[in-house]
Amino acid sequence: MMKLPIDVAQSIADRLNYRHNGLVVAVAQDVDSKKVLMVAFMNREAVLRTLTTGYVHYWSTSRKKLWMKGEESGNVQEVVGFLIDCDADAVLVEVRQKGEACHKGYYTCFHNRVTKDGLKLEG
Amino acid sequence: MMKLPIDVAQSIADRLNYRHNGLVVAVAQDVDSKKVLMVAFMNREAVLRTLTTGYVHYWSTSRKKLWMKGEESGNVQEVVGFLIDCDADAVLVEVRQKGEACHKGYYTCFHNRVTKDGLKLEG
Repeated sequence: MMKLPIDVAQSIADRLNYRHNGLVVAVAQDVDSKKVLMVAFMNREAVLRTLTTGYVHYWSTSRKKLWMKGEESGNVQEVVGFLIDCDADAVLVEVRQKGEACHKGYYTCFHNRVTKDGLKLEG
Repeated sequence: MMKLPIDVAQSIADRLNYRHNGLVVAVAQDVDSKKVLMVAFMNREAVLRTLTTGYVHYWSTSRKKLWMKGEESGNVQEVVGFLIDCDADAVLVEVRQKGEACHKGYYTCFHNRVTKDGLKLEG
């Protein structure tokens, strides 16, 4: 698990461009299977908590609050790696997922595959 | 390459929840290496063009226009798979990337890795 000192985390958080209503886009990817698990948003505080605690935190745009992924379900995401994109307005978090990522019981939130015959459930 | 008839594409586009200022978040992932290449946004038209042409289209939030990835650089993204998340407000596009995804010349836009000593260029 990656946990950074607060001063390093702050310098990282300062580099981001929170241009989507004060947020950056955050993609969580399983570090082992490489599956993309979910997409959500982070504000500066969510970035700081993610980097200093080693557990992924997001800003919920619907509930308008900070949350640690899995705080209720136990399906936490341990931070293994953290990458920033070229525009500094999106981050990619490499995680070890406990349980499953999707609140609907699927391992990944991306479980609806488009086919010629419409959507097909997967995973 | 996946190219769908317009009626199937429309029924897929209708299922999405364009709740981020009329857009969904779109993640492009290399179907072979599984690397996450970039994150951007799509409006309904971008979804339709992506599904019917077999080439990834995005909505540029900075230029406020539809664009086909690689239309100028030639670094197009061929659509291999297309998945919708549980909330239908994000999509994951599995692609074959021509050239590189990042306009800065890196294969992936996520090339800045956070380390204890700050950022390290990668890839």
